Order: sequence, then structure tokens, then C-alpha cells
Amino acid sequence: MDALVIHAPGDLRIEDVPTPEVGASQVRVRVRAGGICGSDLHYYQHGGFGTIRIQQPMVLGHEVAGVVEAVGPGVDTRVKGQSAGQSGGPSVGTRVAVCPSRPCGTCRFCQLGLQNHCLDMRYYGSAMRMPHVQGAFRQEMVIEANQAFALADGISDAEGAMAEPLAVALHAVNRAGPLLGKSVLVTGCGPIGALTIIAARRAGATHIVATDVVAQPLRKAAKVGADETINVAEQPEALARYGADKGQFDVLFEASGNERALRSAFEVLRPRGVIVQVGLSAAELTLPLNTLVGKEFDLRGAFRFHEEFGVAVQLINQGLVDLKPLVSATLSFRDAGRAFALAADRTQSMKVLLSFD
Amino acid sequence: MDALVIHAPGDLRIEDVPTPEVGASQVRVRVRAGGICGSDLHYYQHGGFGTIRIQQPMVLGHEVAGVVEAVGPGVDTRVKGQSAGQSGGPSVGTRVAVCPSRPCGTCRFCQLGLQNHCLDMRYYGSAMRMPHVQGAFRQEMVIEANQAFALADGISDAEGAMAEPLAVALHAVNRAGPLLGKSVLVTGCGPIGALTIIAARRAGATHIVATDVVAQPLRKAAKVGADETINVAEQPEALARYGADKGQFDVLFEASGNERALRSAFEVLRPRGVIVQVGLSAAELTLPLNTLVGKEFDLRGAFRFHEEFGVAVQLINQGLVDLKPLVSATLSFRDAGRAFALAADRTQSMKVLLSFD
Amino acid sequence: MDALVIHAPGDLRIEDVPTPEVGASQVRVRVRAGGICGSDLHYYQHGGFGTIRIQQPMVLGHEVAGVVEAVGPGVDTRVKGQSAGQSGGPSVGTRVAVCPSRPCGTCRFCQLGLQNHCLDMRYYGSAMRMPHVQGAFRQEMVIEANQAFALADGISDAEGAMAEPLAVALHAVNRAGPLLGKSVLVTGCGPIGALTIIAARRAGATHIVATDVVAQPLRKAAKVGADETINVAEQPEALARYGADKGQFDVLFEASGNERALRSAFEVLRPRGVIVQVGLSAAELTLPLNTLVGKEFDLRGAFRFHEEFGVAVQLINQGLVDLKPLVSATLSFRDAGRAFALAADRTQSMKVLLSFD
Amino acid sequence: MDALVIHAPGDLRIEDVPTPEVGASQVRVRVRAGGICGSDLHYYQHGGFGTIRIQQPMVLGHEVAGVVEAVGPGVDTRVKGQSAGQSGGPSVGTRVAVCPSRPCGTCRFCQLGLQNHCLDMRYYGSAMRMPHVQGAFRQEMVIEANQAFALADGISDAEGAMAEPLAVALHAVNRAGPLLGKSVLVTGCGPIGALTIIAARRAGATHIVATDVVAQPLRKAAKVGADETINVAEQPEALARYGADKGQFDVLFEASGNERALRSAFEVLRPRGVIVQVGLSAAELTLPLNTLVGKEFDLRGAFRFHEEFGVAVQLINQGLVDLKPLVSATLSFRDAGRAFALAADRTQSMKVLLSFD
Repeated sequence: MDALVIHAPGDLRIEDVPTPEVGASQVRVRVRAGGICGSDLHYYQHGGFGTIRIQQPMVLGHEVAGVVEAVGPGVDTRVKGQSAGQSGGPSVGTRVAVCPSRPCGTCRFCQLGLQNHCLDMRYYGSAMRMPHVQGAFRQEMVIEANQAFALADGISDAEGAMAEPLAVALHAVNRAGPLLGKSVLVTGCGPIGALTIIAARRAGATHIVATDVVAQPLRKAAKVGADETINVAEQPEALARYGADKGQFDVLFEASGNERALRSAFEVLRPRGVIVQVGLSAAELTLPLNTLVGKEFDLRGAFRFHEEFGVAVQLINQGLVDLKPLVSATLSFRDAGRAFALAADRTQSMKVLLSFD
Repeated sequence: MDALVIHAPGDLRIEDVPTPEVGASQVRVRVRAGGICGSDLHYYQHGGFGTIRIQQPMVLGHEVAGVVEAVGPGVDTRVKGQSAGQSGGPSVGTRVAVCPSRPCGTCRFCQLGLQNHCLDMRYYGSAMRMPHVQGAFRQEMVIEANQAFALADGISDAEGAMAEPLAVALHAVNRAGPLLGKSVLVTGCGPIGALTIIAARRAGATHIVATDVVAQPLRKAAKVGADETINVAEQPEALARYGADKGQFDVLFEASGNERALRSAFEVLRPRGVIVQVGLSAAELTLPLNTLVGKEFDLRGAFRFHEEFGVAVQLINQGLVDLKPLVSATLSFRDAGRAFALAADRTQSMKVLLSFD
Repeated sequence: MDALVIHAPGDLRIEDVPTPEVGASQVRVRVRAGGICGSDLHYYQHGGFGTIRIQQPMVLGHEVAGVVEAVGPGVDTRVKGQSAGQSGGPSVGTRVAVCPSRPCGTCRFCQLGLQNHCLDMRYYGSAMRMPHVQGAFRQEMVIEANQAFALADGISDAEGAMAEPLAVALHAVNRAGPLLGKSVLVTGCGPIGALTIIAARRAGATHIVATDVVAQPLRKAAKVGADETINVAEQPEALARYGADKGQFDVLFEASGNERALRSAFEVLRPRGVIVQVGLSAAELTLPLNTLVGKEFDLRGAFRFHEEFGVAVQLINQGLVDLKPLVSATLSFRDAGRAFALAADRTQSMKVLLSFD
Repeated sequence: MDALVIHAPGDLRIEDVPTPEVGASQVRVRVRAGGICGSDLHYYQHGGFGTIRIQQPMVLGHEVAGVVEAVGPGVDTRVKGQSAGQSGGPSVGTRVAVCPSRPCGTCRFCQLGLQNHCLDMRYYGSAMRMPHVQGAFRQEMVIEANQAFALADGISDAEGAMAEPLAVALHAVNRAGPLLGKSVLVTGCGPIGALTIIAARRAGATHIVATDVVAQPLRKAAKVGADETINVAEQPEALARYGADKGQFDVLFEASGNERALRSAFEVLRPRGVIVQVGLSAAELTLPLNTLVGKEFDLRGAFRFHEEFGVAVQLINQGLVDLKPLVSATLSFRDAGRAFALAADRTQSMKVLLSFD
């Protein structure tokens, strides 16, 4: 079985890797679509980010969907109810989105219900620990049955693969608290920013303004529901009109990791406004902390997700969100170099997917 | 100018009442549509509810929309931004929804931001205080300019009049906390229950089950988005399947005021589930409090609204909610007896509106 | 080894029961003090409460402290830091409070951090499941090491045994939200009510009023810090002065399970006030739900505890709470009949403890 | 009547200023004690902070207590209940703490209950607006009656004057959410840091560690209840042991405005930990935002207070906090130069007070 392995920056290889046996409470999945994430790009372009660097060959990828090929003993394949987040159990032939998050379940944070902070997390395609956790850009994978979330008929593999980044956006929205009737600013309209627009609207935001420095992502932002888009490279003062009365936005989702984006929002966010920082930054940020104090902002980090994966699949399955406008292209994983280059080009693409046939 | 005045149960009269002068910061509105609320019906059928009884003639009505006829000095008629909840200031000719809630602004609760608990509230068409606060079922009314919320083009008067009950539903939803990805049960599908379904969906609920004992409101519930409707008069056991694992619903909106509805939900609501009680009851309720303790429910009252009125108008104006399916009929206020009879007949009607031409 | 076994209402027997082997990650504890809880009394007096009845012989008890006699393999006996809630690991000779709550750790609710709602809870001395979970009124017991919380020097066995009911009170306080500067009413001054007064003060409540219908518990309530005590049997109108401006109390802890207590509080609790119902009731309660709706109360059940057990031991160890005034008497478990009779007599006793030598 | 007026950095003058008439709902207070705040020091040393600079002569001071000399018409001087935060109404002879915060009551933020963000705030002794708001370091002042909070017998004028900084600390604690059983780090042990230790303990924190770079404030921190104090200038690595398992502290109160203090805390605060930033900084801060994202910190500004002033007086009056250890010295306002120099010397003093006789 072939997988997409990174050895060093720019060094992606198709390699044969073994498929494990299907054990108890496990299923084997034939992978059909995999989304290229910003972190995959970072590994590819820079060998990692911050202190996290590739130190050994690693299969990339953590945004995948596929079809169940084999079911191990002890897996409950009965059809489950809607409220459980799955329209059916993972029997052979079921198309599924694969949750890449595998917390231990027993550590201090898992027992607090904060599984995304698990002390022993094994997240697909991550160099955070040694040995690295191998990823999901492969033709076949064996997963725990509870990682498989059935896709409804009519939902494409690409949409299924986007359950993971949608879960990240939903988690960011959950970190913000209730959004019903709120005025929201989203800075940075890459895939996470765009999905956050979708998620914020789904959660009831009434006014959503999106900013970026590139035209193409802003067009997508408008397409998925932003009420107003601002190219702050071209119109650096356009946000200023939201600064009246100490600020008009209730919530900021900062999805760019850019210092200027965050700083500019300090002027237009109202006192007691909430900032959800979901974008990672290339370097440390310098901030006017006294403004945060004086306006009593609430700056909250948002990192990955837990229960939001199931919610993402439910929303996709029920047609309560539409992710199709975000799919830019699908290329074979054997053509990964071209796919990664395309994914890195913000003037052309939003979400690029790999196929694994 | 004519108004619809109640003198006693069943005794509705059209009477000429004077129109006050338009003072500073006020506007005069020509009323065009008024929704008949459950409390209007209670005054009409029983002379009130609980300890609140009609003690003097009172103009009924608090759900109205109309058009601005005159603007007093000092009113800012400039067009306002979207984020303020109004697409335009109340200049002559502006079509507006009228907020019937008039808190004092200075009491202990107003200063806490809990204006719906104002110690000196003057809510239209309410017998809660003496003298009663006269209502809005009248041809003309003078209001404070900040009670007027401009309606967008294409929004009907009837929809505008429904901003008020929608605000009640939005407030109930706000009382519940975040609903994104939540499983919700709504018991009672009168106008408030139906609007709560709409509001809960708008806030991101993924699974909504609605119950009632009459078929017609359940049909409307399905039409406005309930995933499943249950006629508990016909299928008293149908809810039981949601009782697995201590209960499958995260949130209950109890909009019937019916003891059996609330009790039945205790079995299907998960531990730490939230109950928002928005329905008033005809009598006191007997409850298995030990279940509430053992499952650590959180039973919250929801009463009227404050900032939700502006949010309601925004959602209507932006097309983020669709209230049209809930409008059953519009009759002239001169035909109030027939209109009230129709409004009281749950097998026929959801929301009945009066016109005032 | 002897244990106190209930066979039927009024039928308590001292019986020889085997002591299990000490397995991996376990310790054996010599029990030295055990508090008689209201639920123990219910089993003794009525054979149970509600639908929970004794169906087979059961060792009673779940509030115990003792000394570690033996340590199994794999137990970390190194001294731990203060912030972990223990001043030392459970090595031989360590005096410990024993946490009686044993959630499964893996079910849906444990993984949400809601271990007190575990689908497979095994709580000492409880007839909730069949076979019953045997209790802790015994001379020796083998527990998981993480159930043992070391007591500081100078803390008595009796105080250690009261960590459990204090944890219940702390959990009730946690359910209320922040209490700093709040005005609090406690209805019912049995052990849980009295401990709630202590916990509420520790959490920063500035004004605490306690009510009961018996003089002796009210004296204890005053002794542990209530600012005012009211015997509502003798002064049924004394609470009424707190009814001004829709109510003066921010929070009610209802610890009596008495309908009149809860109803009377509806008049003196402010709009948006929080009611924490921690007392169980003998029968269903009839309530003016419309008052709860109109004043938007937030009625929350509080049931047992989880992390609060460690907090209880910490507070006791650091002298941040003083539980000594609540200890009424200590009798040998061989004299259980007399001890239970004394525990049941509210005119004489607050918390009665058993010794197991 | 004499007042202490600042004209420029280092230029403090005693000047005669007129005492206004006592109008309706006002009282005249003879000032007896006034605490020198960090902001007073900033005006004195640097002429202000950040963009806020003295542009005209201004009476300094906002932490004062005194005695009521005259009562205007319409002031309710009846003794009020404890729960209102005052042990008596402000009649002649009543000793009172004076709340320096005067929000407008009507703006958007006042109506949200966020009076500390009032769009038209007039806070004593502040150069934030032009003309500056004159301060309270004067022999007599006329205030609104609702700014006066009666002090209990036995409470000194100095303690009364410290109600204001205690209110700041209480507000910081309120911003943190519930502290019962929490592990708390306080960085910076000036008056606000020390008062935050007191407030956090009062709110139920079980473990409090305090850091500073000067020995004297740390001694005071220990005296008012810190469980451990660390001089991070002498022991820069001493905090590191709290870094186990991703961090041991639940909450950080950052009261130094120092970048290193905030950064060091990122290592020892647990995932989802709360940071309350109450200290203002001399410059912008550079932060590893990716750590905040990855650990999902919640960084909240805390600025001034509103309802906490009444709570501060209540806590002082009831003996629930003891502020006496923080009073370093009391000097005549005619000796302001020496008093300000002493207040600025952290090796000698915590809180320096002025007398106004």
C-alpha cells in the first residue's frame, strides 16, 4: 500500500508501507480524499513550525475520508440515531470521515473533558512527539471504529475530508461563546478563516466582516457568507469606521497569525469583546497590552477540537453547512508536488485535495 | 383614531382614543399589522392569567409594525449601520417594527443590563400594573424613536409584527447558552414554540424534535425546520427512545406550560441538561424534583426579552430566518371577535394578525 | 473483620466480612471514623428513598477516614505537592480520607468531565444498583490508591471523615457560580446545609442567612458563620423583609427538600437569582413555575461531587475551613443503633460519627 | 479649602480650591485619608502614562475616605440593610469610603451593566479626558450620596481609603471566574497584587504563589496569605517546578505589567488556564502567542470596577478581609513630596496614605 512520506523540506516520496491487521473494535478504511492543511504545507516548505520539526520520515495528512473495507470483531455496526452524530455505524461499504485525533482518555485533561490537551495525544501526521505519529495520506488505514463518522448519501469525499478543518472552525466558534445576534470580524480568509465564517453564521452571527490581503480568499469569503469583505492591503483604513463608540464588533476570530491583523482589531472590537486566536504565527507578536486591559478584552486560544468532529459531520450530512465552494481542486497523491504548490498559492486555491486511487 | 379596547372577558370594543402629540425624540407610527399573542387571548378569554386581571378598560396588543408618519425634534434619522440592528433611522415613510418594551433605564436591574426585570417596566397592553399600560392595537401610536426598528424592503408588515414573539424565542435561546451542535427538544408548538425551533436552528442546533398534542402546529413545526415531530397525544411513548444512557437531549425548550410535557422531558434530557421554561402554566406544577437533583438539570425561566428585539429585526431583514410559514391569516381589527376566535383555534391557526386600515 | 450491615429497616448487624487482597495500585486502610449520612439514616429508617430500596444485605457508609496499613505494587508513595490536593502519597501509616466515588472513567459522562453522572458508578454503600455496592462502615477496606487523600497532622479522623459531605457542599457551591460578594440564603441546616454555609463563606459570600424549623441546627449554623438565622417555624414572616425590589438574595441553597422552604425563597430571591437544589425530598414538589419564569430563576440540581473531594481535603488540611463545630458525638460502630438514633435526632445532633476499633 | 494639585511632573502644590454647594441627592464629605495609587505616582513621576498626559493643573487622588459633614435635600439617610453593602445611610457624622467612579448610567455600556466602560466616565483625578476630572486629594468634597459607603465602627480611615484598590482587586478576581479550590499565581506584589492575594483567598483559592523581584513586597504578600513567595530576581528557576504536566496553576493574576512575568507564567499555567491581566505596562509586550493558542489560555483584561466597590466596603466592614498589614505610613498632604517619594520606594512601602487635617 502506498503512502505520501515527507523526508525533509520539499522531499515528498510515495513509499510502500504495510497495512496493519484489523484488530478488535477497529475498521480498515480505503482512503479516497485527503485535504492539504496549512501544517502539511509547513512541513513541506519549512520542515515544520516553531520548535516542531521533522526528525524522521513521516506520512503526512490528517484530513481524510474514505470507505470502510473491513470491520474487526466487536464493532457495533447497527445504524445509530442522528443525535449521535452519525447516520450509520461503520459497516463494510460505509463512507466515512476519519477523525485524526486520538487522545488517551485517561490523563488529567481527558478526564476533565479537555481531550484536545491530552498528555499523550497521538494526532495523525504530527511531528510533535518522537517517534512522530504517522499520518493519513495513504491508500489504506486501520482506525478505531469510533474514529469513523459515516457520511450521508450525496456528500462527496472531499466534503467528508473537510470535516476536520470544519471541526477546527467549530471549536474556535465554541471558544467564543454564543454568537446569536453577534457582530463578528474574521481576520484571515484561508481555509480556517473561511470555515469560521461558515461556522459563525451557522451559530447565528448576524454581521460578519472578513479581511485578508489577497483578493481570491476574500471572494471565497463572500461566497460562503461574509456580509462584507475588506482587502486591508488595498484599503488599510476601511475597518476604521467600526471604531465608533469604542468598537462595534463583539467577537474577533483571528485566523491569520498576523500581528497587524490582531492589532488593527483592537481598535474596532468593543469593550469586553472576545478574541479567538485560531491562527498560528510565524514569530512572536508584539501587542498593546494596555488596550486589552483597558477594554477588558478576552483573548482566547483555540487549538484543534474534540467533540466538534462529530458535529462537523452532522452539519455536513444535514446540509446545514455548504463546504463545496471551498474545494479548489483534487489531484492524485502521486502528483503531490504539484498539489502542494497549488495549495500554497493563495491567489489560486483555497482547499486542495488529494485522491488516493 | 380607533383602538381595540378590552373591557371584560369577551368584551372587545372599537373605541376612539386620542393620538398624543409627537414630542422630542419621538415618532408617530401608523400601525399596519398587529399579531394576536397568547396573553391577548388570555385577557379576551379569561380576563387575564394568574393574579394579573383586567381592572379597567385597556387597549390590547404589543406585537405591531407600521410606518412612520411624523418625526419629533431631536430624532436622528440618518441611516445607521447594519451592526446596530437597523437598516435605517426612523424617518417619515420608514416601515418599522415597534418594540413594546419600555424599561426605565435607571433602576437596579436596568443598570445590571437586565432590563426585562425593570422595577418600573411599562410594557404595552399589560394589566400587570395600575393603571394598566395601554396597548398597540390602534391605528396610530406615538413611540420613542428608539422603539422603532426599520424593516428592510421586501419584509411584510406581518413579518415585522412578528419581531416581538421572535424576540421572546431568541431570548429563550439565549437563556439556553450555546446551541451549536446541540440536540434540542421543544415541547409545545404554538407560536413561541415554533419560533423557538427557528431560533434554535439559527443558533446551530443540529437535531430538533418537537412535540405537541395537536396535528396542525406539528405540521408547522416540521415546516419551519423540526427534524422530527411527535404527537404525544397519539404516540405517548414515542419520546422514550431518547431515554437511552440517561437521556439524549442536551436542551429542552418547554413552551407548553403543561406539566406532563415537562415531566416527560425529565426522562430524555441528559444529565446537566438545560431546561428553558418559556411557557406559562395555567396552574402550579408538581415535579419530581429528585430527578432534577440527581441529573443536575438546570431549569431556567425565560421572560420577554431586551436586546433580542433588535436581533429579531436584523435576522428578519437579512433573511436569516423565515417567519412567513407561521402567518395564518390577517383580519381587520374591526373584526376582532372573529380574529380572536380563529387565533384561539389551534387546529386552524398559528399566528393571526390584525390590520388597522 | 467486622462490618456494619443493614438487612432491613431497623435491622443493623455487625457481621464478619472478608478483607480482599491488596492488588496493584491499591492500598488497605484501617478505618477509624465514619460519618452517618442522611442516606444511611434513610436506609435505616425506611429501607431507602424513592425507588431506591435495600434488596439485599449491604454494608452501609461512605464518609470515612482511616490509616493506610498496606500498599500494593505500583503505588506512588512519594510526597506530592500541595496543589495536587494531597500533602503526601498514601504510604503505610498515612492517615487518609477515603473518596467513596468510583466512576468508570470511560463512559460518555466521564469523558465529558461529569464523573458524578457516570453510567457505571460504584458509590460505596448505595442500593442504586444490583448487586448493591458495599459500603465503608467496616474495620478494613481495600481501595484504589487514588481514592486516598492524605490528612495533615492535627486534623482529626472525624474531620477527615467529613471531607465527603464537605465535598457535596463544595459541589453545590460550584454549581452556583461565583459567590464573591453575593447574598446567600440557605434553607435547611442539617449537615449539608451547615457545610454549605461554610463553603459559601469560603467562596466569598458576604451575607448568609440560614433558615430551619429546629433551634439546634440554627445554633450550629450561626456558629459556623451564618450572619443571621431564622426559625421559620417560629417566625414564618421573618424572611419577608428580604422581598423588597423583587428580592434581595442572589443565591439560594435549598438543603431541606421541603416544599415550603423552596416556595418561600421564590419571594425573596432576586430576578435571575440562582437556586441550587441540593436537598432531596420525600415526595414530589408543587411549585409556582410562573414565578420561576417571570423572575427568570435558574434552578440547578446538585448531586454528589467529583474533583471537590480533593478540594475538601485541601481546605481542611490548610485550616481554611473549620468543621469541628459540626461533630456532635463519636460512638463505636458496635453501638450503631444508639448512634443512628442520635443522628436522627435533630434537636440533639448535627454529625454523628462511628469509630471502628 | 486646600487641595493637592499637580501642574507637571514633580510639581505638586497645595492650592486653595472652592467647595461646591451641596445639591439635591448630594453630601459634603470632610476627607480624612487618601491612598497614593500607582497612577498618582505616574502623574507625579512622568506626567502620565502612555498617551494619557497632564495637560492642565489637576487635583490628584481617587482613594479616599472621610466623614459626612452636610447632607443635601432628597438624600435617604435611613439605615440600610447589610445586603445593600452599607451598614448605614450617609447622614451627618457617618464615616464613609468614597467611590471615585461616576459612570453616566445611560450610555450603551452602562445599559449593558458594564459601567466601567462608560462612554462618558468621570473618574476622579484622571487626565483621560479634557478638561481633566479633578481628584479627591482635598479637604472637602461634594459627592453624590450614592458614592458614599458607610464604614463600620472600628474600621480605620486608612482601611476605608483602601476600598478603592480592593475593588480593583475584587474586579480582577471576578474576571477570573470561580476560584474555589483553584491554584493561583500572582505576579507582582505591589498594592494591587497584594490585594489580589487577599481577594483570591477570600474567593476560595486553595494554593496561592506570589512572585516579585523585591523582597519587601514579597514579605507583605506572605503576611496577607500567600502560601509561597518567590523572588524571581534571586531564584529565576523556582517557578519551573510548577511546569509539570503542561502546568499546575489554574489562574494567573498578572499585576506587574512586566513582560518576563507574563511570559514565565505561560510555562506553568495549565491548558485552558485563565490569565487576568490587571497590571498596566510601560511598553508594548512581545508574547509567544502560539503557546497561548496551543494551551488555549484565556487572557482577560481587568480594568477598574463597578459593583465591587460596595463589596469591598462590605468585606472590610465585616472583617472578612484584613487590609491593615498593607498600610505603610500616613503623612500629611502638606508633606506630599515626601509621601510620594516614600510611596515610590518599593523596598520600604506598600500603601502610603495622606491625611488632610
